[in-house]
Amino acid sequence: RINSTRINATIHESCQWGSTPDGGMNRLTANDDDRRVRDWFIATTKEYGCTHKIDAMGNIFAIRPGENNSLPPIAIGSHLDTQPTGGRYDGILGVVSGMEVLKVLHENNVTSYAPLAVINWTNEEGARFPPCMLGSGVWAGQFTTEYGRARVDAAGITLGNELERIGYVGVEACSFQTNPILAHFEVHIEQGPILDQAELPAAVVGGVQSMRWYDMKVVGREAHTGSTPMDRRSDALLGAAKMIVEANRIATTGDLADRGARATIAVINSSPQSINTISGDVQMNLDIRSPFDEDVLEIERQCREGFDKISKEHGLTLTFETIWISPAVNFNETMKQCVRSSALEIGCHLQLTSGAGHDAVYTSKRVPTAMIFARSRDGVSHNPAEYTRPEDCAAAAQVLLGAYLRYDDL
Amino acid sequence: RINSTRINATIHESCQWGSTPDGGMNRLTANDDDRRVRDWFIATTKEYGCTHKIDAMGNIFAIRPGENNSLPPIAIGSHLDTQPTGGRYDGILGVVSGMEVLKVLHENNVTSYAPLAVINWTNEEGARFPPCMLGSGVWAGQFTTEYGRARVDAAGITLGNELERIGYVGVEACSFQTNPILAHFEVHIEQGPILDQAELPAAVVGGVQSMRWYDMKVVGREAHTGSTPMDRRSDALLGAAKMIVEANRIATTGDLADRGARATIAVINSSPQSINTISGDVQMNLDIRSPFDEDVLEIERQCREGFDKISKEHGLTLTFETIWISPAVNFNETMKQCVRSSALEIGCHLQLTSGAGHDAVYTSKRVPTAMIFARSRDGVSHNPAEYTRPEDCAAAAQVLLGAYLRYDDL
Ligand SMILES: NC(=O)NCCC(=O)O
Ligand SMILES: NC(=O)NCCC(=O)O
Repeated sequence: RINSTRINATIHESCQWGSTPDGGMNRLTANDDDRRVRDWFIATTKEYGCTHKIDAMGNIFAIRPGENNSLPPIAIGSHLDTQPTGGRYDGILGVVSGMEVLKVLHENNVTSYAPLAVINWTNEEGARFPPCMLGSGVWAGQFTTEYGRARVDAAGITLGNELERIGYVGVEACSFQTNPILAHFEVHIEQGPILDQAELPAAVVGGVQSMRWYDMKVVGREAHTGSTPMDRRSDALLGAAKMIVEANRIATTGDLADRGARATIAVINSSPQSINTISGDVQMNLDIRSPFDEDVLEIERQCREGFDKISKEHGLTLTFETIWISPAVNFNETMKQCVRSSALEIGCHLQLTSGAGHDAVYTSKRVPTAMIFARSRDGVSHNPAEYTRPEDCAAAAQVLLGAYLRYDDL
Repeated sequence: RINSTRINATIHESCQWGSTPDGGMNRLTANDDDRRVRDWFIATTKEYGCTHKIDAMGNIFAIRPGENNSLPPIAIGSHLDTQPTGGRYDGILGVVSGMEVLKVLHENNVTSYAPLAVINWTNEEGARFPPCMLGSGVWAGQFTTEYGRARVDAAGITLGNELERIGYVGVEACSFQTNPILAHFEVHIEQGPILDQAELPAAVVGGVQSMRWYDMKVVGREAHTGSTPMDRRSDALLGAAKMIVEANRIATTGDLADRGARATIAVINSSPQSINTISGDVQMNLDIRSPFDEDVLEIERQCREGFDKISKEHGLTLTFETIWISPAVNFNETMKQCVRSSALEIGCHLQLTSGAGHDAVYTSKRVPTAMIFARSRDGVSHNPAEYTRPEDCAAAAQVLLGAYLRYDDL
């Protein structure tokens, strides 16, 4: 059984690097705190009998031998990077749950059939280096290693250079072909309100909704705020503001809304940032999601149409570019059955669809994959107030342990 | 008479510091280019017989003696700082016109009755250190020197420290009382379309419209863009976008619009700048203007009302703070008469109200002040494409010369 005290202590031990005064976390990919928590992850898993592989994207595989070491390991993975205003559970609970399974096997002298790998995937959040789930995406062959390493942060620094700087470019190629796993389990906090409303600690995750990211540039004409008549302006920020409102309107209207549409603009940068110069350049990112691939495309179509109309009305030039596509995912039936049986043992009968992307999305392209959700208090995530009760952390890890042992038996 | 070739050559000579590849200017207050152009201003005016006073705000007074040197000088001033995406005429034409008057007096061995001062006022644009017209504002006792020196740029650097760094903190107190002038003329580009439409090179400026600046903070709740239902969000950027649209609606509707209302949000900063975290914090600046003080207040009232409604609707907290107030100004009648007579000599019969603030606004609080506008091609300003034809620069300076000589005679 999972040791609830230990797993919760380990969560907070791992948060000593990158914690913020408001009780949250700010551990962006490949910064110094990310280096420190990686060092800790390796040192701790080594104590529990693991050897390590680090790949060209900095993904870390902590491997405990099994009975049949000619088999690739069964993996349990998630991520230790966080949002800039993140919490202590998103990603962290998944890696620490894997570490806890490892500890349970170790203290009970259990030799699994296949080897076990606990994985820390690089740059899941995509907060510093968009897009997200990059380490698992490269591993799964969805992006090339060159593409992954060339991602830049807002300051123009590449992920490749930062990984070199913190000493986490491994010798292993980043590939499911040369560094395979048999299957992938991931525990994650729900990040939404359903388990909290259902008063259940954990759930089976059936799949992940469809998502796309876009980069937008709105170009108008800089002009004086005081001397330029209102009807002679090409105000890029006014146009951008109307686009933000329009994207929201589309996702909250009609059938699309009823089927769970989401559209958000959270990043905006306007130039030249002078109070008395009408903005001539605005950059934004749009995030569209829905359980249905076709609805994501329909929201995109309506956004383009609406944005074009706004651009025309204000004499603006709009560039609209898709930067990330992640179609809807259904996890592996056998894996889900293992999770379901284990979850039922503690009375958790719900199956949810994930609103957020996870490393499991990309591993599912290559190997049987499944996920377990832990309840998020008030559904809050990507926020320092993100919280999952100690007993819920332990419950999700317990479901993982049962599911993992079932799959290893199979 | 003004030497058209010379004044235009001097404009472009002064633009060698801070020019941008697109033909515009980026010479923010107290940066290295501002230091270089100040050095040039002092060296050049020295060649034409001036001595110099520099005050605690870095304002530079280049003084040519007159017949009666117990009198304070009649001043001709404007500014050499520019917007980050500025043009080659805004402010620069005013200082260079003063230098050209100086050169005409010098080459014709004219001794004026009162001394002449050509002034470069510090930080007129307010682009790097809001609010604008700061050097003249402190001189006129509208702000304290402490307040002026404590203004910070986006990086948190104070104007006082930057002035020290470039060596432009003078021994003179910044005050109309201890460093007085008799009167203040300012030539400036119109920055609006009226003279271009009227096909006139220059105009008398009757006064300046009323203006206020505001700092706004919109606080919502960071949350996951993928897992947070649309109806459970407090999206600070969505609220901010609605406020931008609302401010625009207010200024373009009904009587306020008919009387020339303007409302603009040009600066926006959102946090945490992560594509998949709903924005929890947005900072913006609002710029409201109208020829009528009471209309500015009415636009403010309607904005507050509209913004409060939006905040309530989205569960946001709004902070709304006035950071700058500049009531409508009427320039001095005697001074205007001097400008009018001089302007009529070259067929310029129009009198305009300025939509932009100028150093003349603050000097007008203390001494007789008047302004002359030069035509702006297409009314474009605060833009690298800002352009005033060589003949229009010369015409405005010619009006200045005539007005100045008339006032000196008086
Ligand atoms: N779990 C999580 O927050 N991942 C980030 C990827 C996403 O934007 O859905
Ligand atoms: N002339 C000019 O652009 N001054 C800046 C002050 C203002 O915002 O009106």
